[in-house]
Parts: sequence; C-alpha cells; structure tokens
Amino acid sequence: MQTYLEACKEAVNAFLARLFEPTGLHARLKEAMNYSLMADGKRLRPALVIATAETFGVPRDRVLPAAAAVELIHCYSLIHDDLPCMDDDDLRRGQPTNHVVFGEAMALLAGDALLTEAFHLLARPLEGVPAERQLAMIRTLASRAGVDGMVGGQAVDIERTGGQGTLQDVEFIHLHKTARLIQACVEIGGYFADLDDQVRWALSCYGECLGLAFQMIDDVLDVTASTEQLGKTAGKDVEEGKLTYPRFVGVEKTRQMARDVIRRGEQALAEVGVRSEPLKALQALIVERDR
Amino acid sequence: MQTYLEACKEAVNAFLARLFEPTGLHARLKEAMNYSLMADGKRLRPALVIATAETFGVPRDRVLPAAAAVELIHCYSLIHDDLPCMDDDDLRRGQPTNHVVFGEAMALLAGDALLTEAFHLLARPLEGVPAERQLAMIRTLASRAGVDGMVGGQAVDIERTGGQGTLQDVEFIHLHKTARLIQACVEIGGYFADLDDQVRWALSCYGECLGLAFQMIDDVLDVTASTEQLGKTAGKDVEEGKLTYPRFVGVEKTRQMARDVIRRGEQALAEVGVRSEPLKALQALIVERDR
Repeated sequence: MQTYLEACKEAVNAFLARLFEPTGLHARLKEAMNYSLMADGKRLRPALVIATAETFGVPRDRVLPAAAAVELIHCYSLIHDDLPCMDDDDLRRGQPTNHVVFGEAMALLAGDALLTEAFHLLARPLEGVPAERQLAMIRTLASRAGVDGMVGGQAVDIERTGGQGTLQDVEFIHLHKTARLIQACVEIGGYFADLDDQVRWALSCYGECLGLAFQMIDDVLDVTASTEQLGKTAGKDVEEGKLTYPRFVGVEKTRQMARDVIRRGEQALAEVGVRSEPLKALQALIVERDR
Repeated sequence: MQTYLEACKEAVNAFLARLFEPTGLHARLKEAMNYSLMADGKRLRPALVIATAETFGVPRDRVLPAAAAVELIHCYSLIHDDLPCMDDDDLRRGQPTNHVVFGEAMALLAGDALLTEAFHLLARPLEGVPAERQLAMIRTLASRAGVDGMVGGQAVDIERTGGQGTLQDVEFIHLHKTARLIQACVEIGGYFADLDDQVRWALSCYGECLGLAFQMIDDVLDVTASTEQLGKTAGKDVEEGKLTYPRFVGVEKTRQMARDVIRRGEQALAEVGVRSEPLKALQALIVERDR
C-alpha cells in the first residue's frame, strides 16, 4: 500500500515536473533548475503543507502550488549550500551536486531562480484562498526563509563551523537553518483554512517542534548512517567541525531531546483539539527515518 | 536645488537604513547586507517606482516599501554577479565588492537574504493598496526578476561571454538581464493606482523601453567612461568578451538605438494621455548620464 508521504510525493513531483520547460535561449538554466528539483527528494516539506491543509478539509490539488513553493525554497538552499564556497559537497540526493554538472555560475543562478519562482508560484491566484490570506502565506515563507530565518541560520552555521561554539549557537542554528522552513510548511498549510488565532498559534508551535526534531535526527544520522543510505556524504558534520547536538550532548541524549520536542508539539495541537492522521503519519516518518 | 532623483534617493536611503539592524547571533550577515545596500547607488530603480506612483497622485511615503523591495533585488543581483564564479569583480559602487570584504559564503548568503526580504517587504500591508493589487506587484517582481526575467538574462550572458554570439543573443540579454527589472519598477509603481488595462499596458511598454535604453547606454559607457566615473571597472565588457551592442553595431549606432527606443516608450505613454514630469526627469538622467 502507498504511504501518505508517497502519495504526496507523486502529486508534488507531477506538479514540479511541469514548472520549467527547458525551452528558449535560457534552456540551460532551466535544465539546471530541473536537475536538482527533480532529483529523488523525500518531499517531506511539501507533504507537510498538504497534510496540514488536508487536516482542515482542503483538497490536495488546491494546495500543490504552495507545497511546490516550499520545495523550491528547500531546493535552492541545497544548491547554494553545496557550492564550493559553502559546504563544498559533490553528492546530494544520490547524484552529483548541481555545480559539479552545470558549473558554479549556473548553479548559483539556478538557486536564485528557484528562490524567486517560489514567490511567483505563491502569488498566483489560489483557488479558495482570499488575497489577504495569500499575502500572509508569502510573508510567512519570506520571514521563515529570510534573514531572520533559514538564511540567518546558515550564516551562523558557516561562521561557527570549525570553531568552538556554544550550545546556544547550536540551538540558534537548528532553529533557524532547519526548523523555520518546516514550521512555515505547517503555517502555510494552515492559511488554506479559515482558522482562529489560537489554532494558528498551535500549528506554528507544532511546526517549530517538528523542525527542531528533524534537525536533531539529522545530526544523529550524520553520525550513525552510511553515505549510501543518506544520498549525501555521511560523517561530514564531524569531519568539518559543524556545531551539532551530538557533539555537545551525545547521540543518545540528542535522540531523547527529539522525542521530547515532538511531545511538546503534540501537546500544542491537542490543546486546541486538532487531530490529524496525515500529520501523525509524517511525524512518525521524521522521528523514525533512517535517511 | 535638489533634483527629483536626489530627493527620492534621500527618502529611499532613510528607509533602507532602518531595515536590517545588525543585532543577534547573525549580526554579521546583516552587516554584509547593509554594506552593499547602503553603498552609494544611484537608486534609479526605486525612484522609478516612486515617480510612476506619484504620476497618479500616490504619496511617496506609501510607495517606499515597494521601492525598497526593487532595490533589494537589484542589490542582491550585483552581489551575486560580482562573485568569483560569475563576473569576478572587486569594485562596485566605488568600494570593494561584498565577497572581498565578507568572504564568498557570506556574500552568497547576503544576496539570498536580500532577495528573500524583497518579497517579505512587498507582502506586508501597504496602505491604500487592495490585497489583490499587492499580489499583482509580487507576481510582477517575481516574474521580472526570475527565470524568464533577470536571472534568465544573466544565465545567457554568462554562457555567451567570451564566445561568438549573435545580435539575437544581445537582444535577449539586454531585455532580460536589465530591462525586465526596470520595467517592473514602472509596473509596480502603477499598481499603487487604480488604472485601466490600456494604461497598465502603456506603462509596461514604457518601462521596457527605458530599461533597454538604460542597458544600451551602459554598454556605451563601458567603452567611453573611466573606472573612476563608473565606480566599477570600466572596459570590462570588451576585456571579457561580453556580448554588447557596441560590439555588433558600434558606439554611435548604439546611442541612436537608445534614443529611438526612448521615443517609442514616450509614444506609448502619450497614446494613453499620461504626462509625467517625474518620469521625464528620470528618463533624461538615464539618457544623458555619464556613469
């Protein structure tokens, strides 16, 4: 039987595949964008957008543009992150990284284009969503991905790599580099429905907790999993002196922290009476994943 | 007496200076953003947003967030453009380029953050603008700056540099790399007012013509002006084998083409009865500028 994530992935992949037809004088740019976009990703972030919207009865088809927008942001961040001046990685999602295939300049531009097109997607008319709520989605994506969100986290990550750092640095990096965009997925999914502020706040809290747990597990997997499993270079965090939780508190304690933060997220949802099978399914995958 | 551009520049600079206060663990990222953002740019693009909105009676203060958003996009594109993997330039707006001061990784992230924050700015409530028109502004900025706009033009520019190329390539590069964002300025300024489709179309056409003329003059200045005048390395287009109009048709013919395309833009405005002193003033600066 197809899992919930697999079903979302299929719908998201079909949508993404139609976005950038490689024609025109700038066909190579679009090839570079598609190369990374259509690589075998888990599509966990777009699935979270879909799952949250479906929790409130919104049909999947309507959610796809917003789900895809988040994946475009995630994809751009991976391309830029892998560049030689950043993490300098040559393997991602089981294939050579973008700049290895298309060159650094084209990879940089492919990232810039994906980032810009995320907002383009999110600003097109969305069936059943009033314009005011659509603006809120755009604000959410921009603030979670921008200077006080993902990019801010990456900046501190890069600055601290190879240095000493503190537990406070690790917390900042995890919260911003990873959790904020995952939080945005749940928040944006919520904007498809007409909810009151309390429920929005609970979703936001749940999303943040999911995101923190995700990065904790990621840190653990870098230590415990193989490159083949991950589709990216294993053991790189340790090798490069990245600030991670296992480095400060060990693998077992990090696993425990992930479980605790997930419980905190579940409580937030329970307090406002939100029950969601799709979100439960995705949450289980995040906690139990091996890649 | 202060010129129209100088007055706009002052208002825009004051607005930009308040955007990214360099506090928090990611203070260095915001310093990198501010470094390029607050360098001595002409602020022609934000002035065009303001001038267009003022043509239809919209007060300047209301327009500043959108004017700043366009400058953020322009600024990010310069930072990324100057990176070693792109044009590898070490001088911009009369000062060392961003990566020379902050390193490549931070420059890359500063660009990503500026790009993202442009959409953040444009999605915040704008006084007097209905949400539907605000979404149209965001779509306009994203499409003019994205894969089928500015980034598409830069990709072809990079690919063709040093090669043979055709006049068709030059036209594509000029239209996309430069004209589309300038066109967006005029279009976005227009979205502050409630206009009919004919006037919107005329503004769009005028903006495109202004943008094309701007890049033609830029090509000419690269040949005729000094590095000191330009605040960036003169003669670089020729040295690197960039595709430019002077290379194909010579300096005099390029100047003539700029005058012709400006006339075409003026006609488009005249046909719908739009007369604008502010736009005229900025247009004169574009055509007659020496840097």
